[in-house]
Amino acid sequence: MGKKYVHGYTARENVRLVDQATTLAGILHSDTVYPAGSNVLEAGCGVGAQTILLARNSPNAKFTAVDVSEDSLRAARERVSSQGLTNVTFHRCDLFHLPYEENSFDHLFLCFVLEHLPNPMEALLCLRRVLKGGGTITVIEGDHGSAYFSPESPDARKAIRCLVDIQAGMGGNSLIGRELYPLLMKSNFVNVDVSPRMVYVDSSKPDLVEGFTKNTFIAMVKGVREQAIRSGLMDEASWDQGIRDLYGTTGEDGTFIYTFFKGRASK
Amino acid sequence: MGKKYVHGYTARENVRLVDQATTLAGILHSDTVYPAGSNVLEAGCGVGAQTILLARNSPNAKFTAVDVSEDSLRAARERVSSQGLTNVTFHRCDLFHLPYEENSFDHLFLCFVLEHLPNPMEALLCLRRVLKGGGTITVIEGDHGSAYFSPESPDARKAIRCLVDIQAGMGGNSLIGRELYPLLMKSNFVNVDVSPRMVYVDSSKPDLVEGFTKNTFIAMVKGVREQAIRSGLMDEASWDQGIRDLYGTTGEDGTFIYTFFKGRASK
Repeated sequence: MGKKYVHGYTARENVRLVDQATTLAGILHSDTVYPAGSNVLEAGCGVGAQTILLARNSPNAKFTAVDVSEDSLRAARERVSSQGLTNVTFHRCDLFHLPYEENSFDHLFLCFVLEHLPNPMEALLCLRRVLKGGGTITVIEGDHGSAYFSPESPDARKAIRCLVDIQAGMGGNSLIGRELYPLLMKSNFVNVDVSPRMVYVDSSKPDLVEGFTKNTFIAMVKGVREQAIRSGLMDEASWDQGIRDLYGTTGEDGTFIYTFFKGRASK
Repeated sequence: MGKKYVHGYTARENVRLVDQATTLAGILHSDTVYPAGSNVLEAGCGVGAQTILLARNSPNAKFTAVDVSEDSLRAARERVSSQGLTNVTFHRCDLFHLPYEENSFDHLFLCFVLEHLPNPMEALLCLRRVLKGGGTITVIEGDHGSAYFSPESPDARKAIRCLVDIQAGMGGNSLIGRELYPLLMKSNFVNVDVSPRMVYVDSSKPDLVEGFTKNTFIAMVKGVREQAIRSGLMDEASWDQGIRDLYGTTGEDGTFIYTFFKGRASK
Protein backbone atom coordinates (compact mmCIF):
# COMPACT_ATOMS: atom_id res chain seq x y z
CA MET A 1 0.00 0.00 0.00
CA GLY A 2 2.91 2.31 0.85
CA LYS A 3 4.05 3.15 -2.66
CA LYS A 4 0.51 3.08 -3.99
CA TYR A 5 -0.81 6.03 -1.97
CA VAL A 6 -1.92 8.54 -4.60
CA HIS A 7 -1.33 11.59 -2.43
CA GLY A 8 2.28 10.68 -1.59
CA TYR A 9 4.12 11.02 1.70
CA THR A 10 5.62 14.51 1.54
CA ALA A 11 5.77 16.99 4.42
CA ARG A 12 3.44 19.31 2.53
CA GLU A 13 0.94 16.48 2.16
CA ASN A 14 1.07 15.84 5.91
CA VAL A 15 0.18 19.50 6.51
CA ARG A 16 -2.70 19.17 4.02
CA LEU A 17 -4.07 16.08 5.77
CA VAL A 18 -4.12 17.88 9.10
CA ASP A 19 -5.67 21.06 7.62
CA GLN A 20 -8.34 18.86 6.07
CA ALA A 21 -9.09 16.99 9.29
CA THR A 22 -9.32 20.17 11.35
CA THR A 23 -11.63 21.97 8.90
CA LEU A 24 -13.86 18.94 8.54
CA ALA A 25 -13.81 17.80 12.17
CA GLY A 26 -17.31 19.09 12.90
CA ILE A 27 -18.86 17.81 9.68
CA LEU A 28 -17.26 14.36 9.70
CA HIS A 29 -16.31 13.40 13.23
CA SER A 30 -18.38 15.20 15.84
CA ASP A 31 -21.01 12.44 15.99
CA THR A 32 -18.47 9.65 16.53
CA VAL A 33 -18.16 9.11 20.28
CA TYR A 34 -17.24 5.75 21.85
CA PRO A 35 -18.23 4.64 25.35
CA ALA A 36 -15.69 4.62 28.17
CA GLY A 37 -13.63 1.47 28.24
CA SER A 38 -14.40 0.35 24.71
CA ASN A 39 -11.64 -1.01 22.49
CA VAL A 40 -11.61 0.69 19.10
CA LEU A 41 -9.47 -0.24 16.11
CA GLU A 42 -8.59 2.57 13.71
CA ALA A 43 -7.49 0.92 10.48
CA GLY A 44 -5.19 2.95 8.21
CA CYS A 45 -4.52 5.80 10.62
CA GLY A 46 -1.90 7.40 8.33
CA VAL A 47 -0.23 10.40 9.97
CA GLY A 48 -2.86 10.49 12.72
CA ALA A 49 -4.91 13.39 11.37
CA GLN A 50 -8.16 11.61 12.34
CA THR A 51 -6.65 9.75 15.30
CA ILE A 52 -6.24 12.89 17.40
CA LEU A 53 -9.89 13.84 16.80
CA LEU A 54 -11.12 10.34 17.66
CA ALA A 55 -9.00 10.12 20.80
CA ARG A 56 -10.06 13.58 21.94
CA ASN A 57 -13.81 12.94 21.31
CA SER A 58 -13.72 9.69 23.31
CA PRO A 59 -11.10 10.29 26.01
CA ASN A 60 -12.08 7.17 27.95
CA ALA A 61 -12.09 4.76 25.01
CA LYS A 62 -8.89 2.88 24.12
CA PHE A 63 -7.74 3.16 20.52
CA THR A 64 -5.48 0.85 18.58
CA ALA A 65 -4.31 2.67 15.45
CA VAL A 66 -2.67 0.67 12.70
CA ASP A 67 -1.04 1.50 9.38
CA VAL A 68 1.36 -0.21 6.95
CA SER A 69 3.70 2.77 6.71
CA GLU A 70 6.29 3.06 9.47
CA ASP A 71 6.92 6.71 8.50
CA SER A 72 3.24 7.56 8.82
CA LEU A 73 3.04 5.79 12.18
CA ARG A 74 6.01 7.79 13.46
CA ALA A 75 4.26 11.03 12.48
CA ALA A 76 1.01 9.80 14.03
CA ARG A 77 2.74 8.87 17.32
CA GLU A 78 4.34 12.32 17.54
CA ARG A 79 1.07 14.05 16.73
CA VAL A 80 -0.87 12.12 19.35
CA SER A 81 1.70 12.62 22.11
CA SER A 82 2.16 16.31 21.26
CA GLN A 83 -1.55 16.69 21.97
CA GLY A 84 -1.14 15.05 25.36
CA LEU A 85 -3.36 12.14 24.36
CA THR A 86 -2.55 8.84 26.09
CA ASN A 87 -5.40 6.60 24.93
CA VAL A 88 -3.87 5.43 21.64
CA THR A 89 -1.59 2.45 20.97
CA PHE A 90 0.05 2.12 17.55
CA HIS A 91 0.89 -1.04 15.64
CA ARG A 92 2.42 -1.45 12.23
CA CYS A 93 0.41 -3.98 10.29
CA ASP A 94 -1.52 -4.73 7.14
CA LEU A 95 -5.31 -4.46 7.00
CA PHE A 96 -5.48 -7.80 5.25
CA HIS A 97 -3.36 -9.60 7.84
CA LEU A 98 -4.47 -8.12 11.12
CA PRO A 99 -2.56 -9.77 13.99
CA TYR A 100 -5.64 -9.93 16.21
CA GLU A 101 -7.96 -12.70 17.34
CA GLU A 102 -11.53 -12.88 16.07
CA ASN A 103 -13.91 -10.61 18.00
CA SER A 104 -11.10 -8.52 19.53
CA PHE A 105 -12.58 -5.05 19.16
CA ASP A 106 -15.78 -3.37 20.28
CA HIS A 107 -15.72 -0.95 17.36
CA LEU A 108 -13.93 -0.29 14.08
CA PHE A 109 -13.17 3.05 12.47
CA LEU A 110 -11.63 3.91 9.10
CA CYS A 111 -11.45 7.16 7.21
CA PHE A 112 -10.14 7.74 3.65
CA VAL A 113 -8.75 4.19 3.48
CA LEU A 114 -11.04 2.09 1.25
CA GLU A 115 -10.69 4.59 -1.61
CA HIS A 116 -7.05 3.58 -1.95
CA LEU A 117 -7.61 -0.19 -2.06
CA PRO A 118 -8.23 -2.39 -5.12
CA ASN A 119 -10.34 -4.74 -2.97
CA PRO A 120 -12.34 -2.72 -0.43
CA MET A 121 -14.84 -5.51 0.21
CA GLU A 122 -12.03 -7.92 1.12
CA ALA A 123 -10.69 -5.27 3.50
CA LEU A 124 -14.11 -4.93 5.14
CA LEU A 125 -14.37 -8.71 5.53
CA CYS A 126 -10.89 -8.85 7.15
CA LEU A 127 -11.89 -6.05 9.50
CA ARG A 128 -15.24 -7.66 10.30
CA ARG A 129 -13.42 -10.78 11.55
CA VAL A 130 -11.77 -8.89 14.43
CA LEU A 131 -14.99 -7.05 15.40
CA LYS A 132 -17.15 -8.39 18.24
CA GLY A 133 -20.76 -9.34 17.45
CA GLY A 134 -22.95 -6.28 17.99
CA GLY A 135 -19.95 -3.97 17.55
CA THR A 136 -20.03 -1.11 15.04
CA ILE A 137 -17.99 -0.09 12.06
CA THR A 138 -17.72 3.54 10.96
CA VAL A 139 -16.37 4.27 7.49
CA ILE A 140 -15.81 7.75 6.07
CA GLU A 141 -14.93 8.24 2.40
CA GLY A 142 -15.00 11.07 -0.10
CA ASP A 143 -16.33 10.96 -3.67
CA HIS A 144 -14.48 13.11 -6.20
CA GLY A 145 -17.39 12.80 -8.63
CA SER A 146 -19.47 14.73 -6.10
CA ALA A 147 -17.45 17.90 -6.78
CA TYR A 148 -19.08 20.68 -8.76
CA PHE A 149 -18.69 24.40 -8.78
CA SER A 150 -19.33 27.76 -10.31
CA PRO A 151 -18.04 29.29 -12.52
CA GLU A 152 -18.08 26.14 -14.63
CA SER A 153 -14.78 25.14 -16.31
CA PRO A 154 -14.04 22.17 -18.57
CA ASP A 155 -10.33 22.35 -17.68
CA ALA A 156 -11.05 22.29 -13.96
CA ARG A 157 -13.29 19.24 -14.48
CA LYS A 158 -10.55 17.57 -16.49
CA ALA A 159 -7.96 18.21 -13.77
CA ILE A 160 -10.24 16.57 -11.19
CA ARG A 161 -10.81 13.70 -13.61
CA CYS A 162 -7.01 13.26 -13.80
CA LEU A 163 -6.90 12.68 -10.07
CA VAL A 164 -9.75 10.15 -10.36
CA ASP A 165 -7.99 8.35 -13.24
CA ILE A 166 -4.56 8.35 -11.60
CA GLN A 167 -6.03 6.96 -8.39
CA ALA A 168 -7.91 4.33 -10.44
CA GLY A 169 -4.65 3.48 -12.23
CA MET A 170 -3.13 2.75 -8.82
CA GLY A 171 -6.01 0.40 -8.04
CA GLY A 172 -8.08 2.83 -5.98
CA ASN A 173 -11.55 4.27 -6.40
CA SER A 174 -12.05 7.92 -5.53
CA LEU A 175 -15.76 7.66 -6.40
CA ILE A 176 -16.30 5.18 -3.58
CA GLY A 177 -18.45 7.39 -1.33
CA ARG A 178 -21.62 6.66 -3.29
CA GLU A 179 -20.87 2.93 -3.01
CA LEU A 180 -20.52 2.70 0.76
CA TYR A 181 -24.03 1.39 1.29
CA PRO A 182 -23.76 -1.60 -1.07
CA LEU A 183 -20.17 -2.27 0.06
CA LEU A 184 -21.14 -2.53 3.71
CA MET A 185 -24.19 -4.63 2.86
CA LYS A 186 -22.19 -7.05 0.72
CA SER A 187 -19.58 -7.37 3.48
CA ASN A 188 -22.28 -8.85 5.72
CA PHE A 189 -22.70 -5.92 8.06
CA VAL A 190 -26.23 -5.17 9.30
CA ASN A 191 -28.13 -2.00 10.22
CA VAL A 192 -26.21 -0.19 7.52
CA ASP A 193 -26.85 3.55 7.55
CA VAL A 194 -25.02 5.93 5.23
CA SER A 195 -25.25 9.68 5.76
CA PRO A 196 -23.85 12.16 3.26
CA ARG A 197 -21.85 15.08 4.64
CA MET A 198 -21.89 17.88 2.12
CA VAL A 199 -19.43 20.73 2.19
CA TYR A 200 -21.11 23.70 0.52
CA VAL A 201 -18.84 26.70 0.09
CA ASP A 202 -19.73 30.21 -1.05
CA SER A 203 -18.01 33.49 -0.28
CA SER A 204 -20.10 34.01 2.87
CA LYS A 205 -18.03 31.15 4.37
CA PRO A 206 -14.40 32.37 4.24
CA ASP A 207 -13.16 29.64 6.62
CA LEU A 208 -14.35 26.93 4.23
CA VAL A 209 -13.04 28.83 1.19
CA GLU A 210 -9.57 28.65 2.76
CA GLY A 211 -9.73 25.47 4.81
CA PHE A 212 -11.65 23.32 2.38
CA THR A 213 -11.70 24.56 -1.23
CA LYS A 214 -8.13 25.90 -1.32
CA ASN A 215 -6.18 23.99 1.33
CA THR A 216 -7.94 20.63 1.13
CA PHE A 217 -9.46 20.11 -2.30
CA ILE A 218 -7.39 22.22 -4.70
CA ALA A 219 -4.21 21.25 -2.79
CA MET A 220 -5.13 17.59 -3.33
CA VAL A 221 -5.68 18.04 -7.07
CA LYS A 222 -2.43 20.01 -7.42
CA GLY A 223 -0.63 17.05 -5.85
CA VAL A 224 -0.96 14.99 -9.05
CA ARG A 225 0.21 17.74 -11.45
CA GLU A 226 3.43 16.02 -12.52
CA GLN A 227 1.79 12.61 -12.96
CA ALA A 228 -1.10 14.09 -14.96
CA ILE A 229 1.18 15.95 -17.36
CA ARG A 230 3.87 13.27 -17.60
CA SER A 231 1.31 10.58 -18.39
CA GLY A 232 -0.26 12.77 -21.09
CA LEU A 233 -3.66 12.92 -19.39
CA MET A 234 -3.56 16.71 -19.75
CA ASP A 235 -1.17 19.19 -21.30
CA GLU A 236 0.55 21.72 -19.08
CA ALA A 237 -1.40 24.74 -20.31
CA SER A 238 -4.83 23.14 -19.79
CA TRP A 239 -3.78 21.81 -16.42
CA ASP A 240 -2.64 25.21 -15.23
CA GLN A 241 -5.84 26.76 -16.58
CA GLY A 242 -7.86 24.11 -14.74
CA ILE A 243 -6.13 24.95 -11.46
CA ARG A 244 -6.60 28.68 -12.04
CA ASP A 245 -10.29 28.01 -12.69
CA LEU A 246 -10.57 25.99 -9.48
CA TYR A 247 -9.18 29.02 -7.65
CA GLY A 248 -11.79 31.03 -9.57
CA THR A 249 -14.49 29.19 -7.63
CA THR A 250 -13.09 30.71 -4.43
CA GLY A 251 -13.87 34.26 -5.59
CA GLU A 252 -16.76 36.46 -4.51
CA ASP A 253 -19.17 34.96 -7.06
CA GLY A 254 -17.88 31.39 -6.84
CA THR A 255 -19.31 28.32 -5.18
CA PHE A 256 -17.79 24.90 -4.54
CA ILE A 257 -19.56 21.73 -3.47
CA TYR A 258 -18.19 18.38 -2.34
CA THR A 259 -19.70 15.49 -0.42
CA PHE A 260 -18.23 12.96 1.97
CA PHE A 261 -20.13 9.84 2.98
CA LYS A 262 -20.18 8.39 6.47
CA GLY A 263 -21.37 4.83 6.84
CA ARG A 264 -22.20 3.12 10.09
CA ALA A 265 -23.13 -0.52 10.49
CA SER A 266 -23.06 -3.38 12.96
CA LYS A 267 -21.74 -6.97 12.98
CA MET B 1 -42.60 31.34 -21.10
CA GLY B 2 -45.55 29.02 -21.82
CA LYS B 3 -44.17 27.24 -24.86
CA LYS B 4 -40.64 27.32 -23.48
CA TYR B 5 -41.29 25.10 -20.44
CA VAL B 6 -38.98 22.12 -20.93
CA HIS B 7 -41.15 19.67 -19.02
CA GLY B 8 -44.30 20.41 -21.04
CA TYR B 9 -47.87 20.72 -19.85
CA THR B 10 -49.22 17.19 -20.07
CA ALA B 11 -51.49 15.50 -17.53
CA ARG B 12 -48.72 13.01 -16.73
CA GLU B 13 -46.34 15.88 -16.06
CA ASN B 14 -48.85 17.43 -13.64
CA VAL B 15 -48.93 14.15 -11.72
CA ARG B 16 -45.11 14.12 -11.67
CA LEU B 17 -44.97 17.68 -10.32
CA VAL B 18 -47.29 16.80 -7.45
CA ASP B 19 -45.47 13.50 -6.68
CA GLN B 20 -42.26 15.48 -6.57
CA ALA B 21 -43.63 18.17 -4.27
CA THR B 22 -45.13 15.62 -1.86
CA THR B 23 -41.98 13.50 -1.64
CA LEU B 24 -39.78 16.54 -1.17
CA ALA B 25 -42.10 18.54 1.10
CA GLY B 26 -40.12 17.82 4.25
CA ILE B 27 -36.71 18.40 2.68
CA LEU B 28 -37.57 21.57 0.78
CA HIS B 29 -40.52 23.30 2.40
CA SER B 30 -40.89 22.42 6.07
CA ASP B 31 -38.76 25.35 7.23
CA THR B 32 -40.73 27.94 5.23
CA VAL B 33 -43.39 29.38 7.54
CA TYR B 34 -44.77 32.91 7.22
CA PRO B 35 -46.24 34.96 10.07
CA ALA B 36 -50.00 35.45 10.38
CA GLY B 37 -51.27 38.30 8.27
CA SER B 38 -48.26 38.57 6.01
CA ASN B 39 -48.70 39.05 2.27
CA VAL B 40 -46.66 36.57 0.28
CA LEU B 41 -46.17 36.50 -3.49
CA GLU B 42 -45.52 33.11 -5.06
CA ALA B 43 -44.07 33.79 -8.48
CA GLY B 44 -44.47 31.07 -11.10
CA CYS B 45 -46.84 28.85 -9.13
CA GLY B 46 -47.44 26.49 -12.07
CA VAL B 47 -50.05 23.84 -11.29
CA GLY B 48 -49.91 24.69 -7.59
CA ALA B 49 -47.78 21.76 -6.46
CA GLN B 50 -45.85 24.01 -4.05
CA THR B 51 -48.72 26.41 -3.43
CA ILE B 52 -50.72 23.89 -1.42
CA LEU B 53 -47.71 23.17 0.80
CA LEU B 54 -47.02 26.87 1.34
CA ALA B 55 -50.65 27.66 2.11
CA ARG B 56 -50.94 24.72 4.48
CA ASN B 57 -47.69 25.52 6.35
CA SER B 58 -48.75 29.15 6.91
CA PRO B 59 -52.55 29.00 7.24
CA ASN B 60 -52.80 32.59 8.48
CA ALA B 61 -50.63 34.17 5.81
CA LYS B 62 -52.21 35.47 2.57
CA PHE B 63 -50.71 34.19 -0.65
CA THR B 64 -50.88 35.71 -4.11
CA ALA B 65 -49.87 33.06 -6.63
CA VAL B 66 -49.07 34.15 -10.18
CA ASP B 67 -48.17 32.35 -13.38
CA VAL B 68 -48.19 33.16 -17.10
CA SER B 69 -50.05 30.01 -18.08
CA GLU B 70 -53.83 30.16 -17.78
CA ASP B 71 -54.03 26.35 -17.97
CA SER B 72 -51.60 25.96 -15.10
CA LEU B 73 -53.49 28.53 -13.04
CA ARG B 74 -56.74 26.65 -13.60
CA ALA B 75 -55.11 23.44 -12.32
CA ALA B 76 -53.60 25.34 -9.38
CA ARG B 77 -56.97 26.89 -8.43
CA GLU B 78 -58.64 23.47 -8.48
CA ARG B 79 -55.85 21.90 -6.46
CA VAL B 80 -55.94 24.62 -3.80
CA SER B 81 -59.72 24.58 -3.41
CA SER B 82 -59.88 20.77 -3.41
CA GLN B 83 -57.61 20.94 -0.36
CA GLY B 84 -60.00 23.32 1.37
CA LEU B 85 -57.39 26.09 1.40
CA THR B 86 -58.80 29.62 1.27
CA ASN B 87 -55.70 31.75 1.77
CA VAL B 88 -54.56 31.90 -1.85
CA THR B 89 -55.50 34.39 -4.58
CA PHE B 90 -54.44 33.69 -8.17
CA HIS B 91 -53.49 36.19 -10.86
CA ARG B 92 -52.34 35.58 -14.38
CA CYS B 93 -49.29 37.73 -15.05
CA ASP B 94 -45.72 37.83 -16.21
CA LEU B 95 -42.84 37.90 -13.73
CA PHE B 96 -41.21 40.69 -15.69
CA HIS B 97 -44.33 42.87 -15.71
CA LEU B 98 -45.82 42.40 -12.27
CA PRO B 99 -48.98 44.52 -11.93
CA TYR B 100 -48.13 45.52 -8.35
CA GLU B 101 -46.88 48.71 -6.71
CA GLU B 102 -43.38 48.89 -5.29
CA ASN B 103 -43.10 47.40 -1.79
CA SER B 104 -46.41 45.51 -2.05
CA PHE B 105 -45.41 42.20 -0.47
CA ASP B 106 -43.94 41.17 2.85
CA HIS B 107 -42.30 38.09 1.36
CA LEU B 108 -41.51 36.46 -1.98
CA PHE B 109 -41.35 32.76 -2.78
CA LEU B 110 -40.35 30.97 -5.96
CA CYS B 111 -39.56 27.33 -6.64
CA PHE B 112 -38.25 25.75 -9.86
CA VAL B 113 -38.81 28.99 -11.79
CA LEU B 114 -35.43 30.68 -12.37
CA GLU B 115 -34.03 27.52 -13.99
CA HIS B 116 -36.44 28.07 -16.92
CA LEU B 117 -35.56 31.72 -17.56
CA PRO B 118 -32.87 33.12 -19.84
CA ASN B 119 -32.49 36.13 -17.53
CA PRO B 120 -32.88 35.02 -13.91
CA MET B 121 -31.18 38.11 -12.49
CA GLU B 122 -33.62 40.39 -14.30
CA ALA B 123 -36.45 38.31 -12.84
CA LEU B 124 -35.03 38.72 -9.34
CA LEU B 125 -34.72 42.48 -9.83
CA CYS B 126 -38.36 42.69 -11.02
CA LEU B 127 -39.45 40.68 -8.00
CA ARG B 128 -37.33 42.75 -5.62
CA ARG B 129 -39.20 45.88 -6.71
CA VAL B 130 -42.51 44.65 -5.30
CA LEU B 131 -40.94 43.42 -2.03
CA LYS B 132 -41.06 45.62 1.08
CA GLY B 133 -37.78 46.67 2.68
CA GLY B 134 -36.81 44.08 5.27
CA GLY B 135 -38.96 41.47 3.52
CA THR B 136 -37.53 38.09 2.54
CA ILE B 137 -37.19 36.16 -0.67
CA THR B 138 -37.02 32.35 -0.72
CA VAL B 139 -35.80 30.66 -3.90
CA ILE B 140 -35.62 26.90 -4.41
CA GLU B 141 -33.89 25.41 -7.45
CA GLY B 142 -32.44 22.07 -8.48
CA ASP B 143 -29.11 21.42 -10.15
CA HIS B 144 -29.01 18.53 -12.61
CA GLY B 145 -25.21 18.52 -12.48
CA SER B 146 -25.52 17.47 -8.84
CA ALA B 147 -26.88 14.07 -9.87
CA TYR B 148 -24.62 11.05 -9.52
CA PHE B 149 -25.29 7.43 -8.85
CA SER B 150 -24.11 3.85 -8.68
CA PRO B 151 -23.74 1.70 -10.70
CA GLU B 152 -22.03 4.22 -12.96
CA SER B 153 -23.29 4.44 -16.56
CA PRO B 154 -22.03 6.67 -19.41
CA ASP B 155 -25.41 6.36 -21.20
CA ALA B 156 -27.33 7.41 -18.09
CA ARG B 157 -25.01 10.43 -17.74
CA LYS B 158 -25.58 11.28 -21.39
CA ALA B 159 -29.37 11.09 -21.01
CA ILE B 160 -29.22 13.54 -18.09
CA ARG B 161 -26.91 15.74 -20.14
CA CYS B 162 -29.56 15.77 -22.91
CA LEU B 163 -32.07 17.25 -20.47
CA VAL B 164 -29.50 19.88 -19.44
CA ASP B 165 -28.73 20.72 -23.08
CA ILE B 166 -32.37 20.80 -24.19
CA GLN B 167 -33.26 23.09 -21.30
CA ALA B 168 -30.26 25.29 -22.16
CA GLY B 169 -31.43 25.35 -25.80
CA MET B 170 -34.73 26.77 -24.57
CA GLY B 171 -32.86 29.50 -22.69
CA GLY B 172 -32.93 27.87 -19.27
CA ASN B 173 -30.20 26.71 -16.91
CA SER B 174 -30.78 23.47 -15.06
CA LEU B 175 -27.41 23.87 -13.29
CA ILE B 176 -28.63 27.00 -11.55
CA GLY B 177 -28.74 25.64 -7.98
CA ARG B 178 -25.02 26.16 -7.46
CA GLU B 179 -25.38 29.76 -8.68
CA LEU B 180 -28.11 30.87 -6.30
CA TYR B 181 -25.73 32.61 -3.94
CA PRO B 182 -24.07 34.88 -6.53
CA LEU B 183 -27.43 35.46 -8.27
CA LEU B 184 -29.09 36.72 -5.10
CA MET B 185 -26.05 38.83 -4.21
CA LYS B 186 -25.88 40.43 -7.66
CA SER B 187 -29.62 41.17 -7.51
CA ASN B 188 -28.95 43.41 -4.50
CA PHE B 189 -30.46 41.21 -1.84
CA VAL B 190 -28.74 41.16 1.55
CA ASN B 191 -28.24 38.51 4.26
CA VAL B 192 -28.06 35.91 1.52
CA ASP B 193 -27.97 32.38 2.90
CA VAL B 194 -28.03 29.32 0.64
CA SER B 195 -28.57 25.87 2.10
CA PRO B 196 -28.20 22.72 0.03
CA ARG B 197 -30.88 20.05 0.41
CA MET B 198 -29.46 16.72 -0.65
CA VAL B 199 -31.62 13.77 -1.52
CA TYR B 200 -29.54 10.65 -0.84
CA VAL B 201 -31.25 7.43 -1.90
CA ASP B 202 -30.17 3.86 -1.23
CA SER B 203 -32.27 0.71 -1.01
CA SER B 204 -32.86 1.20 2.72
CA LYS B 205 -35.11 4.13 1.71
CA PRO B 206 -37.84 2.58 -0.49
CA ASP B 207 -40.06 5.69 -0.29
CA LEU B 208 -37.33 7.81 -1.88
CA VAL B 209 -36.49 5.09 -4.42
CA GLU B 210 -40.09 5.31 -5.65
CA GLY B 211 -41.02 8.93 -4.90
CA PHE B 212 -37.78 10.57 -5.87
CA THR B 213 -35.48 8.47 -8.07
CA LYS B 214 -38.20 6.82 -10.17
CA ASN B 215 -41.22 9.12 -10.07
CA THR B 216 -39.45 12.48 -9.89
CA PHE B 217 -36.01 12.27 -11.44
CA ILE B 218 -36.16 9.44 -13.98
CA ALA B 219 -39.70 10.54 -14.97
CA MET B 220 -38.32 14.03 -15.68
CA VAL B 221 -35.46 12.71 -17.83
CA LYS B 222 -37.84 10.41 -19.74
CA GLY B 223 -39.94 13.48 -20.55
CA VAL B 224 -37.38 14.70 -23.11
CA ARG B 225 -36.92 11.34 -24.90
CA GLU B 226 -38.46 12.41 -28.22
CA GLN B 227 -36.61 15.73 -28.30
CA ALA B 228 -33.28 14.10 -27.43
CA ILE B 229 -33.58 11.48 -30.17
CA ARG B 230 -35.16 13.75 -32.80
CA SER B 231 -32.47 16.38 -32.32
CA GLY B 232 -29.73 13.76 -32.65
CA LEU B 233 -28.34 14.37 -29.18
CA MET B 234 -28.55 10.62 -28.54
CA ASP B 235 -29.53 7.61 -30.61
CA GLU B 236 -32.51 5.56 -29.53
CA ALA B 237 -30.54 2.53 -28.37
CA SER B 238 -28.18 4.53 -26.13
CA TRP B 239 -31.08 6.56 -24.77
CA ASP B 240 -33.03 3.45 -23.83
CA GLN B 241 -29.90 1.93 -22.27
CA GLY B 242 -29.37 5.16 -20.30
CA ILE B 243 -32.90 5.01 -18.92
CA ARG B 244 -32.53 1.30 -18.07
CA ASP B 245 -29.28 2.14 -16.27
CA LEU B 246 -31.00 4.91 -14.31
CA TYR B 247 -33.54 2.32 -13.18
CA GLY B 248 -30.52 0.16 -12.33
CA THR B 249 -29.62 2.68 -9.62
CA THR B 250 -32.93 1.87 -7.90
CA GLY B 251 -31.93 -1.76 -7.32
CA GLU B 252 -30.70 -3.32 -4.10
CA ASP B 253 -27.07 -2.28 -4.67
CA GLY B 254 -27.84 1.08 -6.27
CA THR B 255 -27.57 4.61 -4.91
CA PHE B 256 -28.78 7.91 -6.33
CA ILE B 257 -27.87 11.40 -5.19
CA TYR B 258 -29.32 14.78 -6.13
CA THR B 259 -29.18 18.19 -4.49
CA PHE B 260 -31.61 21.08 -4.40
CA PHE B 261 -30.58 24.51 -3.20
CA LYS B 262 -32.71 26.80 -1.07
CA GLY B 263 -31.70 30.44 -0.90
CA ARG B 264 -33.08 32.97 1.51
CA ALA B 265 -32.28 36.67 1.50
CA SER B 266 -33.70 40.04 2.50
CA LYS B 267 -34.32 43.36 0.74
